[in-house]
Amino acid sequence: MALKWQTLGTKLLCRTSIFELRRRHSVHPRRGERDFFVLNAPSWVNIIPVTPRGEVVMVRQYRHGVEGVTLEIPGGMVDREDLSPLEAARREMREETGYDSAEIIELGRVHPNPAILDNLCFSFLAWNAVRTGRKRLDSDEATRVVRYPLERVGELIASGRITHALVVAAFHLLTLADHGDRRRKPQKSSH
Amino acid sequence: MALKWQTLGTKLLCRTSIFELRRRHSVHPRRGERDFFVLNAPSWVNIIPVTPRGEVVMVRQYRHGVEGVTLEIPGGMVDREDLSPLEAARREMREETGYDSAEIIELGRVHPNPAILDNLCFSFLAWNAVRTGRKRLDSDEATRVVRYPLERVGELIASGRITHALVVAAFHLLTLADHGDRRRKPQKSSH
Repeated sequence: MALKWQTLGTKLLCRTSIFELRRRHSVHPRRGERDFFVLNAPSWVNIIPVTPRGEVVMVRQYRHGVEGVTLEIPGGMVDREDLSPLEAARREMREETGYDSAEIIELGRVHPNPAILDNLCFSFLAWNAVRTGRKRLDSDEATRVVRYPLERVGELIASGRITHALVVAAFHLLTLADHGDRRRKPQKSSH
Repeated sequence: MALKWQTLGTKLLCRTSIFELRRRHSVHPRRGERDFFVLNAPSWVNIIPVTPRGEVVMVRQYRHGVEGVTLEIPGGMVDREDLSPLEAARREMREETGYDSAEIIELGRVHPNPAILDNLCFSFLAWNAVRTGRKRLDSDEATRVVRYPLERVGELIASGRITHALVVAAFHLLTLADHGDRRRKPQKSSH
């Protein structure tokens, strides 16, 4: 049986600063017409900054979805001004941690949620990340920078200290890259 | 500096069948008052069914967010009738694949997106999953069941065949469990 639906029309229900909510009216040859709810959002990025001593630079920050403080790697949205997802990830790293790196490679990309979101999240690795400046946060952000040895990250995930699915996915892509069985060649940073 | 914000009030903007969109008005001691957009959703689950021959039972299905067909493990929302996340995951496995298992353990739980969603996704592993019946899909679902050797999953993720972040996270939790360094003891199924 056919898997695909055809979109007949969409209606904007609500526009926010981070996504737009739309109702999509679609039809399937066997299942008829139905409504689905979809969030249109820009691409997202996250990045694993690793210092020359092998520590991952992470941030503790308040997250309004869960109304609590989480432990994450730097990340955010690709802004209009960003030249590429890589540049966006580098900007987020600098803004949220004050660390920078010129050795950034793409680890891969995932769909944050293909059922309800239309966007991708690109994950990067920054080798030899060093502290070059002060954090420059948006006016509604506050972060605390913490460093953990890379080899402790598995324990932080398994124990529930790191809970963000996109952060867990980024570390999984790193594991696959480490094992050399990736098929998608990482793109070397051009700067 | 303090990380936490205090919620002053929330307003329901839109209610859909799968989440509710709210605007939350919050205050921070240094950053003042601001609006944030949050999606309230029920818990989600996913499950890795592994057959006695070591194959993972997966589903190909159309996803309306990305308007395309994805390769995923079974999963969905915890319904009102479900007794627990484990029972919900077992139900999704039966409905979407026709496979069942009495040996289900929790691998862990993640926040799908702590910035904008308030819910958790629970991941499970089903050992010795066997085909026991026909699929029983919702009227708006259509899936195609495919099986892959467990050892090929890394390649499917690295090559971009598997893209769902929550599926990637589930396989990462499985990897951590395999390596014996998890801290959260899995809950044995009680049925």
